[in-house]
Amino acid sequence: MASKFFAVVAGVGAGTGRSVALKFAQTYPVVLLARKPESYNSIVEEIKAAGGRAIGISTDTADRKSVDAAFATIKKELPDQKLAAAVFNASTGLSRKGFLDQTPEDFELSLRGNALGLFNFAQATIPLLLASTSDSPHPPTLIVTGATASVRGSAKFGDFAAGKFAVRALSQSLAREFGPQGVHVAHTIVDGIIDIPRTKAYNVNGGGPDSKIDPGAIADSYWYLHTQPRSHFTLELDTRPYNEKF
Amino acid sequence: MASKFFAVVAGVGAGTGRSVALKFAQTYPVVLLARKPESYNSIVEEIKAAGGRAIGISTDTADRKSVDAAFATIKKELPDQKLAAAVFNASTGLSRKGFLDQTPEDFELSLRGNALGLFNFAQATIPLLLASTSDSPHPPTLIVTGATASVRGSAKFGDFAAGKFAVRALSQSLAREFGPQGVHVAHTIVDGIIDIPRTKAYNVNGGGPDSKIDPGAIADSYWYLHTQPRSHFTLELDTRPYNEKF
Amino acid sequence: MASKFFAVVAGVGAGTGRSVALKFAQTYPVVLLARKPESYNSIVEEIKAAGGRAIGISTDTADRKSVDAAFATIKKELPDQKLAAAVFNASTGLSRKGFLDQTPEDFELSLRGNALGLFNFAQATIPLLLASTSDSPHPPTLIVTGATASVRGSAKFGDFAAGKFAVRALSQSLAREFGPQGVHVAHTIVDGIIDIPRTKAYNVNGGGPDSKIDPGAIADSYWYLHTQPRSHFTLELDTRPYNEKF
Amino acid sequence: MASKFFAVVAGVGAGTGRSVALKFAQTYPVVLLARKPESYNSIVEEIKAAGGRAIGISTDTADRKSVDAAFATIKKELPDQKLAAAVFNASTGLSRKGFLDQTPEDFELSLRGNALGLFNFAQATIPLLLASTSDSPHPPTLIVTGATASVRGSAKFGDFAAGKFAVRALSQSLAREFGPQGVHVAHTIVDGIIDIPRTKAYNVNGGGPDSKIDPGAIADSYWYLHTQPRSHFTLELDTRPYNEKF
Repeated sequence: MASKFFAVVAGVGAGTGRSVALKFAQTYPVVLLARKPESYNSIVEEIKAAGGRAIGISTDTADRKSVDAAFATIKKELPDQKLAAAVFNASTGLSRKGFLDQTPEDFELSLRGNALGLFNFAQATIPLLLASTSDSPHPPTLIVTGATASVRGSAKFGDFAAGKFAVRALSQSLAREFGPQGVHVAHTIVDGIIDIPRTKAYNVNGGGPDSKIDPGAIADSYWYLHTQPRSHFTLELDTRPYNEKF
Repeated sequence: MASKFFAVVAGVGAGTGRSVALKFAQTYPVVLLARKPESYNSIVEEIKAAGGRAIGISTDTADRKSVDAAFATIKKELPDQKLAAAVFNASTGLSRKGFLDQTPEDFELSLRGNALGLFNFAQATIPLLLASTSDSPHPPTLIVTGATASVRGSAKFGDFAAGKFAVRALSQSLAREFGPQGVHVAHTIVDGIIDIPRTKAYNVNGGGPDSKIDPGAIADSYWYLHTQPRSHFTLELDTRPYNEKF
Repeated sequence: MASKFFAVVAGVGAGTGRSVALKFAQTYPVVLLARKPESYNSIVEEIKAAGGRAIGISTDTADRKSVDAAFATIKKELPDQKLAAAVFNASTGLSRKGFLDQTPEDFELSLRGNALGLFNFAQATIPLLLASTSDSPHPPTLIVTGATASVRGSAKFGDFAAGKFAVRALSQSLAREFGPQGVHVAHTIVDGIIDIPRTKAYNVNGGGPDSKIDPGAIADSYWYLHTQPRSHFTLELDTRPYNEKF
Repeated sequence: MASKFFAVVAGVGAGTGRSVALKFAQTYPVVLLARKPESYNSIVEEIKAAGGRAIGISTDTADRKSVDAAFATIKKELPDQKLAAAVFNASTGLSRKGFLDQTPEDFELSLRGNALGLFNFAQATIPLLLASTSDSPHPPTLIVTGATASVRGSAKFGDFAAGKFAVRALSQSLAREFGPQGVHVAHTIVDGIIDIPRTKAYNVNGGGPDSKIDPGAIADSYWYLHTQPRSHFTLELDTRPYNEKF
């Protein structure tokens, strides 16, 4: 693979992050960011085994210095490559506690892990994406993963929803500021349980096949968003299993 | 082409309808519905020239008898084929008049041309789509084209917005009723001017390249929606040029 | 009562319409429009018994001629009075049928009873409201009653939601066109069961006190909206019982 | 005044906070929270001069300890009174910088000043409001002030919108968790410039009378929300000048 461009995915684990990384690795070298190396090590191996190129960097997106260090490493590791796509998939702060049991730390964890994380990641990637507008194969893209809680504040989800609403706010702002400069910012609303090992036992939507979202389908949707031409940018894409109540 | 499945597109002209028909015709025989044969004749020829199969039927989707007659013709013409995808792209009733200059006829034209049209088309296609859930290559799909006016009632757009909001309401209702039965209903919001011969002179968004939506990109998005697996159904997809104000 | 101004309420029955009429009758003569005289006769009596002035006119707001005739009657009956407030509370077309059991007539009943009704009513009242901007005690007001189905298309509610979404679209358009001319257009979303004789047996939200909306509280909210000064216009007000799931 | 109940307003200055405090002080003793005493001192005097009771407490709602200290002071100053209404009107973090010029501190200032501030304020007030449900004259109420940026992320407003979206998320979550327990949580969207000394020179909406929102009208709307009975709770109320573009 001799792509002049690379992709970076922040927040990789067993679900969306891994699938998106594998998908984009079919075209680009991919940088994987996660706090713990065990979150990305096996994915890096998987990509390499498939003939792709991948780099994992231990990064806490909520920590500015950590993000700056990660992008310094990227610049050293991929000195001649430009950024084609950045995916922010980090998510944290779902305490599932009743409001009066939540602590300020629970609440800040969500605000920082979700919103400040995107802020830091976007400040690192937007300049790189802007620098790619003239020659990238597809419009340079920042895709942000949201959830049901991005558009609905439910009882006991105040902390998580606060972070997710804030992420959506920032995504809209970035789309409106940088879309006219040629960078595609998109926000997805993943409304359902993702089918990963950890959720195998979850009995949702009756429990039949396809009742949980296939992370491979999410990866396909992110690739579709990435390849949209600039005359046709989607800002928001929702997705849910066919039998999800909504 | 020996597909056991076909697609039907209601509302074809120079823009979205034509592009979607050409796209789906790469896989399925396509039936084109429009009031005037001159709206579909050249597209039928285009599809045939490319080796596909196409049938045009003069149909007014706002008229129940006309819709029933069209689907009777389809049954006769394609007796052994099942419906894989239905696209409702009809749109009418944009008087652009101030409210006090609009007539009840203007208003009803929009309600009937948009909402009743979808009602009739959905009553004809939903049973056929339900019959395809067990064996269609992709989840049987009804895609409905919306516009900015689907989500925003602007001054002087009361008639058009009324019809478009109603279409969105019906699309949501259909998605919630028939999604759990395996039919994918999706609604798009096309927010911008489509780049077709009629709009060549429109100077929008500064007038540069890609300032109007490429109808080919819309077709790609409809095909993407059609091919989503049933664990990952999108209900609503918005799209606009990178430099559109919104 | 010697008010120079009057109010008109379209769609009166046992719930919102009656309560709003009683409330506004404390300040203005009130004209009540309903298809059947039995819908307004007792309310007219109630208002008169309380020392107010009321006129009932049999009117089908979905029928333009009927609306024109009603406003000709109003002009004759109240020749020296100007319109301060118009309330559109008509609602119809809730078949509660599954989509495939709905008929085109069901669907059109909702489109016409809701959306065309508002269109006709607004064309009759907006000119009168515009004529009152200079001297009415409060900004002349058009208030439109919506429902949960105004913002959500649920399974089996396609017909009703289509009409209600269309009403909301038109209300937004009117607000944006006539707000800057001094007419206040507001749309409410009544999300819950209204506490009227017909719903006494409905066991909603656990069935305890206040589990259904007090129509008197709705009337208070409409009066509040009417009395907002023009520097502070509300477009949309939602309301539901404290224990309603939403 | 011998009210058994009091109100607390967080975030008082020349606009909404002052007007709301004056309005609620006609019925309840009012506690004013602001970081700087000069923000509330004159309002406290105004309320006292009008025969009301008011206490100002220097408080930073983004700081948990400061909030806890304020409510300890309130308990000491008003030992026999229960909380009827709490208004969260604090707002900060509008840097108006382009995204790439914003600092993590700008962004966190908005997240903390808006969202964490509400979190702390709600954790202090919700238990007090719950304790008032049985005997307060109106359903105990938490009203939260939002802005255009609560529902729209505009270019260069990413920091402010992130904080405001998060506030709305938390408000919705609180409404859904504590509404069924009898506490009314409402969120307002103030969409326009408020008419205060600082904005006198702003030439908005053509500059004519009523082109900026009268803070007295906002106070009336908050009082209206507070007095809604529990069968009729409004979650969200938007407001803007009659000639505001939206």
